Amino acid sequence: MPGNSFGQLFRITTWGESHGPGIGVVVDGCPAGLPLSEKDIQVELDRRRTGQSKVTTTRKEPDQIRFLSGIFNGKTTGTPLAMMVENSDADSSKYELIKNLYRPGHADFTYDQKYGFRDYRGGGRSSARETVGRVAAGAVAKKLLARHKIKIFGFTRQIGEHIAQNFSQKEIEKNIVRCPDKKVAEQMIDAIMQARKEGDSLGGVIEVIAQGVPPGLGEPVFDRLDADLAKALMCLPAVKGVEVGIGFEAARLKGSECNDVFITKNKKITTETNNAGGILGGISNGNDIVVRMVVKPTSSINREQDTVTQKGKKAKIRVEGRHDPCVAPRAVPMAEAMVALVLIDHLLRNQTSQL
Amino acid sequence: MPGNSFGQLFRITTWGESHGPGIGVVVDGCPAGLPLSEKDIQVELDRRRTGQSKVTTTRKEPDQIRFLSGIFNGKTTGTPLAMMVENSDADSSKYELIKNLYRPGHADFTYDQKYGFRDYRGGGRSSARETVGRVAAGAVAKKLLARHKIKIFGFTRQIGEHIAQNFSQKEIEKNIVRCPDKKVAEQMIDAIMQARKEGDSLGGVIEVIAQGVPPGLGEPVFDRLDADLAKALMCLPAVKGVEVGIGFEAARLKGSECNDVFITKNKKITTETNNAGGILGGISNGNDIVVRMVVKPTSSINREQDTVTQKGKKAKIRVEGRHDPCVAPRAVPMAEAMVALVLIDHLLRNQTSQL
Amino acid sequence: MPGNSFGQLFRITTWGESHGPGIGVVVDGCPAGLPLSEKDIQVELDRRRTGQSKVTTTRKEPDQIRFLSGIFNGKTTGTPLAMMVENSDADSSKYELIKNLYRPGHADFTYDQKYGFRDYRGGGRSSARETVGRVAAGAVAKKLLARHKIKIFGFTRQIGEHIAQNFSQKEIEKNIVRCPDKKVAEQMIDAIMQARKEGDSLGGVIEVIAQGVPPGLGEPVFDRLDADLAKALMCLPAVKGVEVGIGFEAARLKGSECNDVFITKNKKITTETNNAGGILGGISNGNDIVVRMVVKPTSSINREQDTVTQKGKKAKIRVEGRHDPCVAPRAVPMAEAMVALVLIDHLLRNQTSQL
Amino acid sequence: MPGNSFGQLFRITTWGESHGPGIGVVVDGCPAGLPLSEKDIQVELDRRRTGQSKVTTTRKEPDQIRFLSGIFNGKTTGTPLAMMVENSDADSSKYELIKNLYRPGHADFTYDQKYGFRDYRGGGRSSARETVGRVAAGAVAKKLLARHKIKIFGFTRQIGEHIAQNFSQKEIEKNIVRCPDKKVAEQMIDAIMQARKEGDSLGGVIEVIAQGVPPGLGEPVFDRLDADLAKALMCLPAVKGVEVGIGFEAARLKGSECNDVFITKNKKITTETNNAGGILGGISNGNDIVVRMVVKPTSSINREQDTVTQKGKKAKIRVEGRHDPCVAPRAVPMAEAMVALVLIDHLLRNQTSQL
Repeated sequence: MPGNSFGQLFRITTWGESHGPGIGVVVDGCPAGLPLSEKDIQVELDRRRTGQSKVTTTRKEPDQIRFLSGIFNGKTTGTPLAMMVENSDADSSKYELIKNLYRPGHADFTYDQKYGFRDYRGGGRSSARETVGRVAAGAVAKKLLARHKIKIFGFTRQIGEHIAQNFSQKEIEKNIVRCPDKKVAEQMIDAIMQARKEGDSLGGVIEVIAQGVPPGLGEPVFDRLDADLAKALMCLPAVKGVEVGIGFEAARLKGSECNDVFITKNKKITTETNNAGGILGGISNGNDIVVRMVVKPTSSINREQDTVTQKGKKAKIRVEGRHDPCVAPRAVPMAEAMVALVLIDHLLRNQTSQL
Repeated sequence: MPGNSFGQLFRITTWGESHGPGIGVVVDGCPAGLPLSEKDIQVELDRRRTGQSKVTTTRKEPDQIRFLSGIFNGKTTGTPLAMMVENSDADSSKYELIKNLYRPGHADFTYDQKYGFRDYRGGGRSSARETVGRVAAGAVAKKLLARHKIKIFGFTRQIGEHIAQNFSQKEIEKNIVRCPDKKVAEQMIDAIMQARKEGDSLGGVIEVIAQGVPPGLGEPVFDRLDADLAKALMCLPAVKGVEVGIGFEAARLKGSECNDVFITKNKKITTETNNAGGILGGISNGNDIVVRMVVKPTSSINREQDTVTQKGKKAKIRVEGRHDPCVAPRAVPMAEAMVALVLIDHLLRNQTSQL
Repeated sequence: MPGNSFGQLFRITTWGESHGPGIGVVVDGCPAGLPLSEKDIQVELDRRRTGQSKVTTTRKEPDQIRFLSGIFNGKTTGTPLAMMVENSDADSSKYELIKNLYRPGHADFTYDQKYGFRDYRGGGRSSARETVGRVAAGAVAKKLLARHKIKIFGFTRQIGEHIAQNFSQKEIEKNIVRCPDKKVAEQMIDAIMQARKEGDSLGGVIEVIAQGVPPGLGEPVFDRLDADLAKALMCLPAVKGVEVGIGFEAARLKGSECNDVFITKNKKITTETNNAGGILGGISNGNDIVVRMVVKPTSSINREQDTVTQKGKKAKIRVEGRHDPCVAPRAVPMAEAMVALVLIDHLLRNQTSQL
Repeated sequence: MPGNSFGQLFRITTWGESHGPGIGVVVDGCPAGLPLSEKDIQVELDRRRTGQSKVTTTRKEPDQIRFLSGIFNGKTTGTPLAMMVENSDADSSKYELIKNLYRPGHADFTYDQKYGFRDYRGGGRSSARETVGRVAAGAVAKKLLARHKIKIFGFTRQIGEHIAQNFSQKEIEKNIVRCPDKKVAEQMIDAIMQARKEGDSLGGVIEVIAQGVPPGLGEPVFDRLDADLAKALMCLPAVKGVEVGIGFEAARLKGSECNDVFITKNKKITTETNNAGGILGGISNGNDIVVRMVVKPTSSINREQDTVTQKGKKAKIRVEGRHDPCVAPRAVPMAEAMVALVLIDHLLRNQTSQL
């Protein structure tokens, strides 16, 4: 199957390019009867929007969502929910200059190789703008999950050398880098502003936590919950790694240190620690789901770099479009959306596990 | 769809439990005309087999592969290739003792939660024995890839604190931990033997490299090559994290450090460095594909641990079955198989990208 | 998976309701490089449009297609092709009267049962208006097929008691019922006008022929070409039966009468007769593909019928909306579209059958 | 995706050739907790078995089912249920004679075209022997459906010119052609014996009825219940047409004759007549599901026919293997199995339609 759909029972299909008429998504499989308004979607789109703070790109897209189908009298009908955002502040002129050059770290070269040519305006389909559709669909997923008392939130754990040391959930949405550590947040902001000044960019680590996930979600042996989460996060732009729970730290531990011991708490079986990140054997165990992803520093930098032309000739390039100096802050709602999409899908799938 | 199939065009479905009649796989979508013998499969199964060295479990399974369908006159017919291995050395008696206890770090609890009960003999379906089918299918994938000059190999990069410092591809299969650094291999072996003596276990990191992959593989935006690789590795038992190329290191880098500059070499466009791990925008760029996964220390340890019974009562457990003190060495062929399955699938999928 | 997508490699997802903002389709998997304009689509939409002749409903929808993504410089990019038609002449007022009644032969009752409620305006999602998206996608498929010298055309074989006796391909699009027999076409038109006058409706049989289909298309054992064609036609509104080649007539024949004998013609192996309708063992044999479907008489009739309310109380109903007295003429382009979608999908799928 | 899997949530994958080691199926998605024994499967396999009466082929296959996985303590575990039947009475010698000839009406030519060569022994994968796996899986589906009070039965409605006039359900399994009309059954048997004597074969029509199906099953707009049933039946060997309810008769009717009027009966809304065959808008309406399929006369006939060699040279062929002179009687359990597979799949899918 082609690659623009995600999910099995709660299935989304995204479409649209950075500088085309618009960006959209079709959600198929949303159960009927969910009260849903455009406002429910807009609040999440506003969190991923460009131009929301000084650490993001200055491209200004209002990203106004419009329902095209699937809603009747304020409720989902069970038939496809189509949503769309018109593109407005697309400035393609700057791309004319670099349409024959391959931007280092970008998909220009690989799209050309795969499809024979590419829509070079703003990255076309490879633009992070495509995630508008995902975040919109994720907002629906979140609302469905909320009915099952499942809550999802994400935050920036690391930018460059700066790693959050303290955790205050309330702090997260109060600062523009979405870091749960107020003091480190300020360091992150400084580092980003400094990188922008130097025409450079920074990478970072995002963490997403899902609370209230019941045990039993995940379909071994391939559609394990962790495996689907890994795919969900890795298919976001700029992501180069994914971890669950203890993650890569597990390499250094002994079994006696890493195993989460089972205990009974409030008459429910749970684990004392959560190195597993809430998943055992690919199935949720009722503890918090904890996942992380790393985003590389933005490829588009306002510095001269070596590259080649489409014909392979040596050239210099400086990418002057409007770009985030660090994608981490805006990647938080994207990561949350992907986690929400995986969880709602597995929640639906798990309904048929037993007689 | 249920979770026991993997791949879109080269699609495998595995079946079987640790202590059932056998373990098998159906490969659907293998092109017709590939010369294939049981020996082609056996060589890979022997690499993942138990009892192959002192660092693996002592369970002795010959794991003799048998073709059940899909071959005629020594060639694949284009119809389903079914393969099976009979279980032979299954000793279920030890599991009677712990059938009402939840082993820390195991899927006992989550299978019970999901399905209402579980086949407790040897972990049932959650056993790593299930990967026999994957490795068998991966052997077919490798043979197909070889016709396209694509070669895959994996190795152990880290066990516990021991990290390979030097890289010699020839060394890998010469030592029992499959480490490309002879000296570190010895340290790893000592560490494993020591952990076994203490009734404990160790984690590790596996790396897989695919050479000769043409540019163009991967289906944005969801079935990106990196995303499918992430899922492929994360759905192996005990894996808690996955990286592509520079991986989590990307968080600390600046764009000017992380970007791989395009160059022309032997009249082909390539990149000077390979921080991307051979993938840009979810599509292969012609450079080596480089992926890593972390395996947690084996959950089954011969030490007393706290746990609870199925009814939630406090209990003690000591897991006395035969287990690998570190799964890394045997996980190498498993990881290779998963990478091979992803690559052949995307190679087939890419055939329809252009007119 | 949810039910609003069709096809494996050339995959369409339709969305939209009769009286919502619009109707659309996302085509995923269209190879890059196909020259495509909105005019290519419009010509097919105009053939399915309402109000095109006196035998169709008087609802007037211009059905102007708009590309939303997937085209760059006049060619498909290989990324999702999104298309949309705005709804304009939707008059929902008449539906207020019958929103609590179940129209005989309609999906009102079953949608209520399945989803708990329904969008009653114009049938909502169950309206034949949904096929706008299919016909638009089918136009793309036809253009791709034309590059492989595959041509598809359909016609009305039967309306009520009137069955085409002669076959002239040129005649088909010259008359408003799309019948290849000029004389019978007139009888059909008279019969439809008479039925409309009586507030009644008529059924019919549509036949579609695909010429130039190479041998080898179809994926046994489930995704046989005939099986996928059967599903493709049966999922059109009002269809109650599907046949391939000789169809139901086969029940009366002996093997010696039914078998198509192999011959060599122009150095190619073919069959003397075509009772098989171009398909053997679920795979195309190079002969014309011949399929038929029966459409029931339009359920909405301007006559009083017995029915019940949503609460199950006896009631009378007369459906006064604007409806086709016979859907056959407009079902011809719909059936062609579905056949085209199946063929392009299988053409792409067959590219990986052999090494 | 390759073509050897069927179903979305209750998904089967069949494997095996007529003269290979065996025939099998993997059922993925069967809910955990269903009591299931090999006897449950065997009873259905015995109904499709060869050699069960004088009107079937004399090939004698005991078709003894063996569970390979997915059962623990007599219940399904929720993990893949693998089942296998060994081939025993395969006599490949007769096929040597015709391996270079194309049997009229067979898949020999199309398999060669698709795959480059074929397993010519007994038709290989295109043999009706492949349906063993379907019938085995169908037996599981039937058992699950029975828990929901859904009952499925099929019968032979027509063989050659002989059409059942009376309907007695009890009669069906009492005669060897599975006809609900005792008198016509005898005529059918005589006709088959006569055809066999003449080295010829007969076609027929099978009808399947499902009782107790709740309203709401079916996923518009493509995975409509009728569309999936059409595919399910059309992918059986030798089937050339499929009908639901009134079927092709609908072409001759007026809307006022064809519409099933809604009534209330036992406090439930239902329809007075059942021309719709229990399906409206692609969704079950609670009435009996009624489907029919036509099977062509067996292609293998013991008479000299014209054909060509693989190289296209004229030749004569007489097919002397052991074949059913009419497949209708043995096709009854096959058709039932396919209907059962569709219904259980849609029953599971419908669980997520509403909040």
